[in-house]
Amino acid sequence: MPNPTAAMLVIGDEILSGRTRDSNMYYLAGALTRHGIDLKEARVVSDHAPSIVAAVRALSDAYDHVFTSGGIGPTHDDITADCIAEAFGAHIDVRADARALLEAHYARTGTELNAARLRMARIPDGAALIENPVSTAPGFTIANVHVMAGVPAVFEAMVASVLPTLTGGAPLISETLRVDRPEGEIAAPLGDLAARYPDLSIGCYPFLQNGRPGANVVIRGAEAAQVSAAMAELVTAVGK
Amino acid sequence: MPNPTAAMLVIGDEILSGRTRDSNMYYLAGALTRHGIDLKEARVVSDHAPSIVAAVRALSDAYDHVFTSGGIGPTHDDITADCIAEAFGAHIDVRADARALLEAHYARTGTELNAARLRMARIPDGAALIENPVSTAPGFTIANVHVMAGVPAVFEAMVASVLPTLTGGAPLISETLRVDRPEGEIAAPLGDLAARYPDLSIGCYPFLQNGRPGANVVIRGAEAAQVSAAMAELVTAVGK
Repeated sequence: MPNPTAAMLVIGDEILSGRTRDSNMYYLAGALTRHGIDLKEARVVSDHAPSIVAAVRALSDAYDHVFTSGGIGPTHDDITADCIAEAFGAHIDVRADARALLEAHYARTGTELNAARLRMARIPDGAALIENPVSTAPGFTIANVHVMAGVPAVFEAMVASVLPTLTGGAPLISETLRVDRPEGEIAAPLGDLAARYPDLSIGCYPFLQNGRPGANVVIRGAEAAQVSAAMAELVTAVGK
Repeated sequence: MPNPTAAMLVIGDEILSGRTRDSNMYYLAGALTRHGIDLKEARVVSDHAPSIVAAVRALSDAYDHVFTSGGIGPTHDDITADCIAEAFGAHIDVRADARALLEAHYARTGTELNAARLRMARIPDGAALIENPVSTAPGFTIANVHVMAGVPAVFEAMVASVLPTLTGGAPLISETLRVDRPEGEIAAPLGDLAARYPDLSIGCYPFLQNGRPGANVVIRGAEAAQVSAAMAELVTAVGK
């Protein structure tokens, strides 16, 4: 059975303006690969409601799971929860269960639960809360969309809350060979190998190090024995 | 006049598997912002022809410019050029001008221009070449799509070749205030400010540092005087 598929949607002007370098995509990609869920696509959109709604609908239709990051805080530019509700035609308001979490948290820390903070309890009807062990304000899952915070420490904690609840497939087995030769020299044997192992994904990722070209060749597949067999052939064909 | 809009398309399994952390998106976002082109969306797709073709068409229709990275090397998994040609219904083959560049380069370095390397001269009819001062094999522009390499040093050099040929708008003016308070405390005055300055984009980007919450508030706009006036109000309202 093929692995479940997933897409990620990063929401935030700060990524597209070049102010912030996204790290959540890189983190989620690794976590999903280890869990046996295939990340097939990622998108970054700005804090613009129609763009968020359209992307959520397109990705939710196309993949088994969608993971979003960003836009669920207390400020005016945090519009993700309302956009997700709109995408699914769900009613949204401050919800009692989320409000109770925030009330307990702010009472414990002696902080006022003001109107802005209460926005973080806006959860669409029918959504399940995602635990936030870092700063309490929850994420949520509605249909196949998992809505999480943008701050990396919080995002990562929410991924840790959600992933164990999802059925994964076989984690992809991966072996890498670093070749200190230009990829133009190894392309022919690589192409042969890829043709003879259609079940494997064989990728060639070139780099420049101190001005000298090289490449990492990555062989990925579901069966360790097949990956190892292909890797042995690769080493014979192109050398270490 | 509003600034031209752009999207980026990152092509490569290595990003989606979590093997590589993309840096080209972050680089391009900064370069476009400085040039006065608004990056509105970014997508990452795998080395899968139908996904690449569909994304190129969707983004080319929706934005003034599309910038792609990845998949134009000599190996079997480098399918970007053929996918771009398919997206535009253009004929593609080894083209004389690109071939001449490669012949001169490999003659100079005493290296064989083999069949794999010759794949890098596959350029769609009607495309204009993008200079690659790092490793010669060119990128290309067809319609409003600029096709560039994935290796960051080469991508960045190609961006430097292309950007000066594109008409930019006014670079966005941006001022940032770091506030060492939780964003829930400053959300109300921020919302007021955003409502009173509808021409400005006011974003609040929370962080955790040593377990303590804070936020960077970024005010962006086309007119420096207006950005400064809003920033002065912000400082009065929330303190330094």
